[in-house]
Amino acid sequence: MSTVGHLINGARVDDATRTQDVYDPSTGEVGGQVALAGKATVEQAIAAAQDAFPAWRDTPPAKRARIMYRFKALLEQHADEICRLIGQEHGKIVHDARGELQRGIENIEYACGAPELLKGEYSKNTGPGIDSWSEFQPLGVVAGITPFNFPAMVPLWMYPAAIACGNTFVLKPSERDPSSTLYIAELALEAGLPPGVLNVVNGDKEAVDTLLDDSRVQAVSFVGSTPIAETIYARASANGKRCQALGGAKNHAIVMPDADMDNVVNSLTGAAFGSSGERCMALSVAVAVGDEAADALIDKIQAQMKTLKVGPFHDADNDFGPVITRAHQEKVCGYIESAQQQGAEIVVDGRGVQVPGHENGFFVGGTLIDRVTPDMTCYLEEIFGPVLLVVRAGSMEEAMRLIDEHEYGNGTCIYTRDGEAARYFSDRIQVGMVGINVPLPVPVSYHSFGGWKRSLFGDLSAYGPDAVRFYTRRKTVTQRWPSTGVREGAQFSFPS
Amino acid sequence: MSTVGHLINGARVDDATRTQDVYDPSTGEVGGQVALAGKATVEQAIAAAQDAFPAWRDTPPAKRARIMYRFKALLEQHADEICRLIGQEHGKIVHDARGELQRGIENIEYACGAPELLKGEYSKNTGPGIDSWSEFQPLGVVAGITPFNFPAMVPLWMYPAAIACGNTFVLKPSERDPSSTLYIAELALEAGLPPGVLNVVNGDKEAVDTLLDDSRVQAVSFVGSTPIAETIYARASANGKRCQALGGAKNHAIVMPDADMDNVVNSLTGAAFGSSGERCMALSVAVAVGDEAADALIDKIQAQMKTLKVGPFHDADNDFGPVITRAHQEKVCGYIESAQQQGAEIVVDGRGVQVPGHENGFFVGGTLIDRVTPDMTCYLEEIFGPVLLVVRAGSMEEAMRLIDEHEYGNGTCIYTRDGEAARYFSDRIQVGMVGINVPLPVPVSYHSFGGWKRSLFGDLSAYGPDAVRFYTRRKTVTQRWPSTGVREGAQFSFPS
Amino acid sequence: MSTVGHLINGARVDDATRTQDVYDPSTGEVGGQVALAGKATVEQAIAAAQDAFPAWRDTPPAKRARIMYRFKALLEQHADEICRLIGQEHGKIVHDARGELQRGIENIEYACGAPELLKGEYSKNTGPGIDSWSEFQPLGVVAGITPFNFPAMVPLWMYPAAIACGNTFVLKPSERDPSSTLYIAELALEAGLPPGVLNVVNGDKEAVDTLLDDSRVQAVSFVGSTPIAETIYARASANGKRCQALGGAKNHAIVMPDADMDNVVNSLTGAAFGSSGERCMALSVAVAVGDEAADALIDKIQAQMKTLKVGPFHDADNDFGPVITRAHQEKVCGYIESAQQQGAEIVVDGRGVQVPGHENGFFVGGTLIDRVTPDMTCYLEEIFGPVLLVVRAGSMEEAMRLIDEHEYGNGTCIYTRDGEAARYFSDRIQVGMVGINVPLPVPVSYHSFGGWKRSLFGDLSAYGPDAVRFYTRRKTVTQRWPSTGVREGAQFSFPS
Amino acid sequence: MSTVGHLINGARVDDATRTQDVYDPSTGEVGGQVALAGKATVEQAIAAAQDAFPAWRDTPPAKRARIMYRFKALLEQHADEICRLIGQEHGKIVHDARGELQRGIENIEYACGAPELLKGEYSKNTGPGIDSWSEFQPLGVVAGITPFNFPAMVPLWMYPAAIACGNTFVLKPSERDPSSTLYIAELALEAGLPPGVLNVVNGDKEAVDTLLDDSRVQAVSFVGSTPIAETIYARASANGKRCQALGGAKNHAIVMPDADMDNVVNSLTGAAFGSSGERCMALSVAVAVGDEAADALIDKIQAQMKTLKVGPFHDADNDFGPVITRAHQEKVCGYIESAQQQGAEIVVDGRGVQVPGHENGFFVGGTLIDRVTPDMTCYLEEIFGPVLLVVRAGSMEEAMRLIDEHEYGNGTCIYTRDGEAARYFSDRIQVGMVGINVPLPVPVSYHSFGGWKRSLFGDLSAYGPDAVRFYTRRKTVTQRWPSTGVREGAQFSFPS
Repeated sequence: MSTVGHLINGARVDDATRTQDVYDPSTGEVGGQVALAGKATVEQAIAAAQDAFPAWRDTPPAKRARIMYRFKALLEQHADEICRLIGQEHGKIVHDARGELQRGIENIEYACGAPELLKGEYSKNTGPGIDSWSEFQPLGVVAGITPFNFPAMVPLWMYPAAIACGNTFVLKPSERDPSSTLYIAELALEAGLPPGVLNVVNGDKEAVDTLLDDSRVQAVSFVGSTPIAETIYARASANGKRCQALGGAKNHAIVMPDADMDNVVNSLTGAAFGSSGERCMALSVAVAVGDEAADALIDKIQAQMKTLKVGPFHDADNDFGPVITRAHQEKVCGYIESAQQQGAEIVVDGRGVQVPGHENGFFVGGTLIDRVTPDMTCYLEEIFGPVLLVVRAGSMEEAMRLIDEHEYGNGTCIYTRDGEAARYFSDRIQVGMVGINVPLPVPVSYHSFGGWKRSLFGDLSAYGPDAVRFYTRRKTVTQRWPSTGVREGAQFSFPS
Repeated sequence: MSTVGHLINGARVDDATRTQDVYDPSTGEVGGQVALAGKATVEQAIAAAQDAFPAWRDTPPAKRARIMYRFKALLEQHADEICRLIGQEHGKIVHDARGELQRGIENIEYACGAPELLKGEYSKNTGPGIDSWSEFQPLGVVAGITPFNFPAMVPLWMYPAAIACGNTFVLKPSERDPSSTLYIAELALEAGLPPGVLNVVNGDKEAVDTLLDDSRVQAVSFVGSTPIAETIYARASANGKRCQALGGAKNHAIVMPDADMDNVVNSLTGAAFGSSGERCMALSVAVAVGDEAADALIDKIQAQMKTLKVGPFHDADNDFGPVITRAHQEKVCGYIESAQQQGAEIVVDGRGVQVPGHENGFFVGGTLIDRVTPDMTCYLEEIFGPVLLVVRAGSMEEAMRLIDEHEYGNGTCIYTRDGEAARYFSDRIQVGMVGINVPLPVPVSYHSFGGWKRSLFGDLSAYGPDAVRFYTRRKTVTQRWPSTGVREGAQFSFPS
Repeated sequence: MSTVGHLINGARVDDATRTQDVYDPSTGEVGGQVALAGKATVEQAIAAAQDAFPAWRDTPPAKRARIMYRFKALLEQHADEICRLIGQEHGKIVHDARGELQRGIENIEYACGAPELLKGEYSKNTGPGIDSWSEFQPLGVVAGITPFNFPAMVPLWMYPAAIACGNTFVLKPSERDPSSTLYIAELALEAGLPPGVLNVVNGDKEAVDTLLDDSRVQAVSFVGSTPIAETIYARASANGKRCQALGGAKNHAIVMPDADMDNVVNSLTGAAFGSSGERCMALSVAVAVGDEAADALIDKIQAQMKTLKVGPFHDADNDFGPVITRAHQEKVCGYIESAQQQGAEIVVDGRGVQVPGHENGFFVGGTLIDRVTPDMTCYLEEIFGPVLLVVRAGSMEEAMRLIDEHEYGNGTCIYTRDGEAARYFSDRIQVGMVGINVPLPVPVSYHSFGGWKRSLFGDLSAYGPDAVRFYTRRKTVTQRWPSTGVREGAQFSFPS
Repeated sequence: MSTVGHLINGARVDDATRTQDVYDPSTGEVGGQVALAGKATVEQAIAAAQDAFPAWRDTPPAKRARIMYRFKALLEQHADEICRLIGQEHGKIVHDARGELQRGIENIEYACGAPELLKGEYSKNTGPGIDSWSEFQPLGVVAGITPFNFPAMVPLWMYPAAIACGNTFVLKPSERDPSSTLYIAELALEAGLPPGVLNVVNGDKEAVDTLLDDSRVQAVSFVGSTPIAETIYARASANGKRCQALGGAKNHAIVMPDADMDNVVNSLTGAAFGSSGERCMALSVAVAVGDEAADALIDKIQAQMKTLKVGPFHDADNDFGPVITRAHQEKVCGYIESAQQQGAEIVVDGRGVQVPGHENGFFVGGTLIDRVTPDMTCYLEEIFGPVLLVVRAGSMEEAMRLIDEHEYGNGTCIYTRDGEAARYFSDRIQVGMVGINVPLPVPVSYHSFGGWKRSLFGDLSAYGPDAVRFYTRRKTVTQRWPSTGVREGAQFSFPS
């Protein structure tokens, strides 16, 4: 059984003094080990990144970008292998892994635009004979800490942009499903990144703390749960670093009475149950405005859910796979149980789902719960499982109030065909990513990803234009040349 | 003797349970009192700002900007009175106060461009029939905490941009010289700001802590010393707020052997002694490359310093005035003393300067110290007084190393006529604001102000384009309309 | 009776060898004379602009902008007098003149942003040690030729932006209503424009041809009718100049069955009859989708039109005033006559309207014509009078086809509450300025104004961002410094 | 012997009613034939482009861009074959062809950024509840007409950007060397462009005129000589199209007395003789300031020229190859002859150069002419051959005057190490592309290429940001939603 190690200064490093099991969630069995880097190993990665920085910052952005073009091509070429690795350790069905990878590749495409994106602002004659311009220089060594649910995509939100901007990078991916992340990083090196520009260390809190405290690390990007995000943001900030920390979510869709209900149901089921709901953009609460809409919604979703297939990752006919761990499986079932106890109506119950031949897999079936109220545990917390809650509201205002009063503000959606309702909603709702008839309003790679309220700590969002600003530091130069120089005749006898 | 109070919800509030003396530094006498707001008063200001927010965010940016046009006109009209208030409490000579005010007005001019600056990014067909755009929405209530040395300008770095972006504002200015700040804020209301959009509270740590801890405050901009900046940044960040905290400086100018020495001396004396050196962009260290350059520099500056006039603020013939307090006067003299003791050469000694008729004023004369070395106290710390240090370096590389190894990285400058030296310097130096033959490279209002290293904590700089980004939150909307609507004939009888 | 002359090099020039009558359209009487500049006078203006250019281009953009701030304030201060002059010579009611002036002032506000708008693009390390940037430099002397219908606004679309970008300007306004234009230009000088930066010549074809053929004129902006626009574009282009020439319009509104009909009628009457329909953005054709919508529309508009008041400019109770000339009055009535003869239904007939006390004024009353078909003369040509045509279409597709097949493509509008219909329309319609429930979709000053098809000749639209690009020329600088310079030790004995 | 035909609607079309010889300039022999498209064939191409447009404009920009990624990869893969085709028909040495191809590929890279580059401007609340945005929509069918000297690169300046913006394209390349152009276009189709999106027609004036006059063609990009550029610009403009027409050049380098002379000579010889001087950015005039600089320059260049190798394209040891035709060879020699007769000093004479084994090739050797004066024919006209003129000037001002008084204003360069001289030069010189110690200041692909004066007709430059603006049309949408809709409870039964 193999152990997944680290990638430091262009080489695999197998610092396996401490290791942890990596599971195959479809079978429930241990599939390998991952090394947990100690402080010294992380510092070695930081040092490699630090050493690689001076030459990398001086590499023209167009040359840096050209490596990204090759990186993209390599990922497209090795997509099958990457998706297999994702599926094996995460449980995601192969088509879903493909989607994740494609989204990741789109972030590389964005990084290909570095020469354009790094343009500074040039002002002629800010005063008489004085020019000023602002450059966006790389920070130095930056770190990324990423979650288990998108082992390919979330790291690709970070390091392609950071590196294309001239930084060097240390990535600490999730220790739950480390293989695809490492494999992809190796392809980045194969594409031409010089040793030390991208380093990967697997690990746990010790690794994270080392990254947060080491003064050579200039910035930290984090994606994970809100409590951890908050801690990381506070610690990195107290250490004088810039930090962006993305946390949890509870994404609501408002279903208006004039909504195209077939469209609602088709798109909502994917958004609620895809990837077993283990997405920070999963649509986990539907708020129906009026009982008529609610009843219609429940009926149609219930019907549609009959066709949902849950099973192991390698079977592309499945709609979604297992959750990440046995503990998480139990936690999700616990939320369903609590809903029942607190008075909600379990319309479809995914507990106890049986997947023949995979009896030990960490499966939870698609679950639909009606008549949820805002005080229930299942409503207040992020379930991160294939569970769709339905709340009934008497008006759009009431529905919006629910959303605004929730702790999180990552994504949201309204289903309507009315222009005014859409504009009112998107203008006012206290959520960072808003869909109009789009249940998973994940911004495309050339926009930026960021929630509001306790879903994101920091000024700047992930990927897209904000990433360029996050991974660079403004330098403003003001230039005036003294007026008597070689231009005037007397200077012709200038030194040979 | 009057007491300067607060400005809350459009009205003067005189919560004078606690007060503090305000001095006239030119005479050394107490000129008035300032009220120190307690927690309740600050919360009242926050509440006023919170209440004013919904209507203000909905006011079209062009209308918000139009108030800024009027505000600018009012400041130009009342410039004399503003400069008198600045001089009286800060000690700055009237022409210097004018310069400060003009810089502040330029920040208002920038805010007049809000309709252009707030443009979001619009993408057609991010998918088939899907459009996405990013809006930059205001944050809500934001706070500014500003220092004594620019009572007019630094607040104007902050609130015009914040307010033009649709936020409402609570300003906590320096309690040392509060009058001009308050007077200017009243003109902003006169220009048309609705009550509650801009509030001013005078105070001390209690007021600051209230702003940092109140969950209604979304963001904090701070300018002051590095230790305080660091504390504020950590606390605001731990509270989940966005924060930008600007701290201290130690700005070096490199004087190259090919520099136009007359230009160096003319511009350096202003940059070193102007406003008694109480500027975070003051040029406080000259690094001469080669002894020949150093000797020439010392000779010429020494000669030029003979013409420097120090005296009270109201006499426009003076070059600079007193420092802010008796304690600060003593601190500055202490640095000169330490330099002497640690082996530097005091070429011109400003201690004990006598200003006839103002014997109790907090004056320190222009001071020139040669042969300073990097281990001396006067070199390591920010003096914030009219003291220019000269360090001698053997090469440009050595000079640059000095700068890069210093704790601060606010501003710096090189004097040369050589294009290559200038480019090498501006590219590599670890400082945020760089001058080429410009000793005070303060960015114009349409660029942004920000140091590097321990001179700024946060991702985004002050004023200019960065301020627009700091004072707004990105919201990304993804929109798709279901395909069967009123457009198709059959739908004329719209579905129930 | 006074003669309106020219403004050249900062002074009034009264070259009155040829003159033309200027009428008061409300009374039908001659109110004054306008001088018609000969070639020599126009060349004098061009020469003045040419001479003023070198110093003006070197004036920092922020200083140029500061004159625009004062210009705006002066226009606000003298608004009454300006509106009186507009009304007297154009016939526009005072509230309408106010609106025009306000729009013009907003273009000055945009020009105040010149320092931001003129920022070039700066790229570090386009190659090793090589930097490149693009500057946007002024062109030199540029000319504007403007129509009678907006004597204040259209010139202000042009010269504030051109001048703020560093150009100098020669304006040839309409000879029909020259007084307000000249008065405003004098206020621009009073605001601080140096002599020669803005020049005004009144005249006719001889003046226009001189501007088009003189090689010192770098660019021409024109607004007028399509045949003239086309001629001017061809001639200016053949002379190697850049040119933007805006022509005529026939703006349609589609009224969908789900439209809020009260909103339609309220907004449509203003858009159709305001300023007697003498606007290139006038809404002159309503296309009702379905007979039900058509009938409702006709009923409600007819009712609303009963309240319309036509009369002289100075009475603010009037809704609109006379048309510009007797000849134009007859032309408009001729279109109504032709409609009748070609089979349309004259629902409300504005011919023969009587304005007591102003029997000789050039008045035409509000006219509503139903059952217009695309082959009628009144449909094919631009009427430029207070005449609203109604066309009945069987579907939205048919309505859109009408618009796309018309020669012009200036503005258009759809009335609906359906998001899908709005998006389908705005995406596909071959028109440059599109309103959703907005009948006069004139872009705000920080966007740009431009029609499609035969409504605009040229690449770039008027005012807003496009104007900045039109009035500047890109210069790209690529810079590399040889590597051995003063920076290296040996050069320390650089010249004394 | 094969005949090069056309590429229309995704297929080779061999309309060979009229053909023309294609030469191998290295041997002087005919290597094939090119078909000359008649009007009908060109109209077929236009029709194909027109038909392909609706689907292509609706293809999401990111999908369009993805084809560009593949196109880039295919060109890199087939680089050898492309360079062979270029060399065979143009005569360019293989390394030079590689350089050309690389530059072309960089334009494809820029087009990959379409999703970012096409972002419109979004303004919230331009009025109460009113939003406005500007979209940049494709024009429709656009045409490119390109010259012989860069058969790969110049077409790639045009169609990748045009197509990525959503247009469809008809390319009319040079009939002198059509093969590489066609081969590359076929790779674009292989990369995934749908049939009709890119069409190539070979031809002569008949083809050009058809493109200029056909009303379906919305815009024309041209690169060639100034007289043709001027004619094309006038005709396209008179036809109401947008047009950018790039013409000739006479690029000067000023050599200042303080220049690094070794750098001057190394870079100048490549810039003057590379590609036999058949480049619109060739550096063809060196202006030495002061006789000392001139003498040193002549000496060093003369020495360096001894090592120059001229010969056939396939030998990579050669520095440059033949000129394009026998007639052009004679024309270049005629210029050298005229220089001699008009009193210049032929320092190195390239006439009569012998290339063993290639006696009939169209070779001209590197030629250096000193003491050229501005009245000489060789100075006034563009030679487009391997001929470097040296003019001696007494001052920098005199040197700049020469440049500004020349008809052309494409590129220019100054050699100096003095920052002030460089800034003075780049600010004031009337030339569009300026080098500081860079003799061929061709902007990188993410800036734009454009000369001034009679080197470019039109508002917008080629490739880079300007191309995006040139190939799109601004549409501004203003949107307001009526306030009573589905959002309010009562409206649940939607109004009839």
